[in-house]
Amino acid sequence: MKGSLLYEGKAKRVYHTTDDSGRLILSYKDDATAFNGKKKSEFEGKGRLNNLITSKVFEYLHQQNIPTHFIEACSDTEQLVDQTTIIPIEVVVRNIAAGSITRRLGIEEQTSFTPPIIELFYKKDELNDPLINDVHAYHLTDINEQELTFIKHQALIINEHLIELFRSAGLDLIDFKLEFGRRTDGTIVLADEISPDTCRLWDSQTGKKMDKDVFRENIGSLIETYENILQRLEENVCAK
Amino acid sequence: MKGSLLYEGKAKRVYHTTDDSGRLILSYKDDATAFNGKKKSEFEGKGRLNNLITSKVFEYLHQQNIPTHFIEACSDTEQLVDQTTIIPIEVVVRNIAAGSITRRLGIEEQTSFTPPIIELFYKKDELNDPLINDVHAYHLTDINEQELTFIKHQALIINEHLIELFRSAGLDLIDFKLEFGRRTDGTIVLADEISPDTCRLWDSQTGKKMDKDVFRENIGSLIETYENILQRLEENVCAK
Ligand SMILES: Nc1ncnc2c1ncn2[C@@H]1O[C@H](COP(=O)(O)OP(=O)(O)O)[C@@H](O)[C@H]1O
Ligand SMILES: Nc1ncnc2c1ncn2[C@@H]1O[C@H](COP(=O)(O)OP(=O)(O)O)[C@@H](O)[C@H]1O
Ligand SMILES: [Mg+2]
Ligand SMILES: [Mg+2]
Repeated sequence: MKGSLLYEGKAKRVYHTTDDSGRLILSYKDDATAFNGKKKSEFEGKGRLNNLITSKVFEYLHQQNIPTHFIEACSDTEQLVDQTTIIPIEVVVRNIAAGSITRRLGIEEQTSFTPPIIELFYKKDELNDPLINDVHAYHLTDINEQELTFIKHQALIINEHLIELFRSAGLDLIDFKLEFGRRTDGTIVLADEISPDTCRLWDSQTGKKMDKDVFRENIGSLIETYENILQRLEENVCAK
Repeated sequence: MKGSLLYEGKAKRVYHTTDDSGRLILSYKDDATAFNGKKKSEFEGKGRLNNLITSKVFEYLHQQNIPTHFIEACSDTEQLVDQTTIIPIEVVVRNIAAGSITRRLGIEEQTSFTPPIIELFYKKDELNDPLINDVHAYHLTDINEQELTFIKHQALIINEHLIELFRSAGLDLIDFKLEFGRRTDGTIVLADEISPDTCRLWDSQTGKKMDKDVFRENIGSLIETYENILQRLEENVCAK
């Protein structure tokens, strides 16, 4: 059962469970934020869509033997997960250039990266989530070299699985952000969410943006877009 | 003999030599710039000081068997070097936290880094020299993994030598920036300059800043400071 609020982020509330199981409930909010919180809005139904999409994606990754925090969706907007200590690093994987990297490094949008580019960002709102390198990560967090190698390796394997999953839903996976957490036994697992808030997804046929960029750039209905992603995931073979 | 101007940067003019030797003349200007050119000034005598300080430092590194572009000072403001194709990466080595890293990552000034932190910046004025990681470097330049490993290794060895050199001049080496260039035979050597423009140097006794920060922060006379650095290097045992 849902216990007290542990913390509230921009997209989710995190609750304890009352059964001492070391589990948490992630409750997805209807809020949308972009540009590190500078642009904000609310979309009725967004919490449900991101909860159900994330659940589908994590179930799929579980089938592919990726260790994650995910246990199950317990309501339309809530999911049960293992509590972890989040490593304050956002791991970004880029297959195709889009968004910040194009401006930051002057790389043309649509440039493809083979192998994919992995970027680490220090998860710290006050600092605007700055890009860091491996040595920064050792100084700023408690991970060591072997663990960072593991995380990057996991990120690349997850990328392969997600490319496959979204391809079968008619979507190109451009880039995405992962967070990893540490279980009490020290092992590191994939945590947080994987949704159109945290991925760039372009329609494989038309190239249309089908993710939070519709909100960032005011180019369509967020709810219709996310609804469409959920439908495609529910219909496609791969995710079953 | 000095030939035609090859290019002009913020701190130096680069000239061909007339003898077809594949050598260049670096002519140090009196200009000082900071914050990627947003703050500018001219200091009579600065070009001479940076030329002579850089020459001393590169001679010392040559004695320590570090391969560099440096041949000799040929006048008060000019030095002869081997032409290279500069790899557009600024390699920063940090022993103690100061400057941009304190603001960027919220690290307290004076925090010491053991091992030192190496940072790579993409040398591109239009982009404000953004921080990059290794994979970015492979995408943005022609260096490969083995070469980047070599460059980082060289940077750490050079750090050890410079710490020693400046310590014997009563100075703590806080951080510095290096550039590497490729010779026509493909080998990579240390290039560009090493001066109070490109190093943070704090007086070992008083902690006083003895580098370009006196200009950045308007806290003293640039010329007197650089003159003092040159004197100390000329007097100290280590550099002879
Ligand atoms: N399994 C987990 N254990 C602990 N914290 C988690 C877990 N999964 C996600 N979190 C954290 O929940 C918080 C709330 O999520 P979110 O609203 O997306 O936050 P943010 O505003 O930091 O993006 C985040 O700090 C996220 O890292
Ligand atoms: N051995 C070398 N061969 C070719 N170019 C060099 C060499 N050493 C330094 N340079 C380049 O000389 C240029 C002029 O130096 P500087 O005025 O410091 O330029 P910047 O404004 O780019 O800092 C820089 O682009 C620097 O990389
Ligand atoms: Mg989040
Ligand atoms: Mg320069």
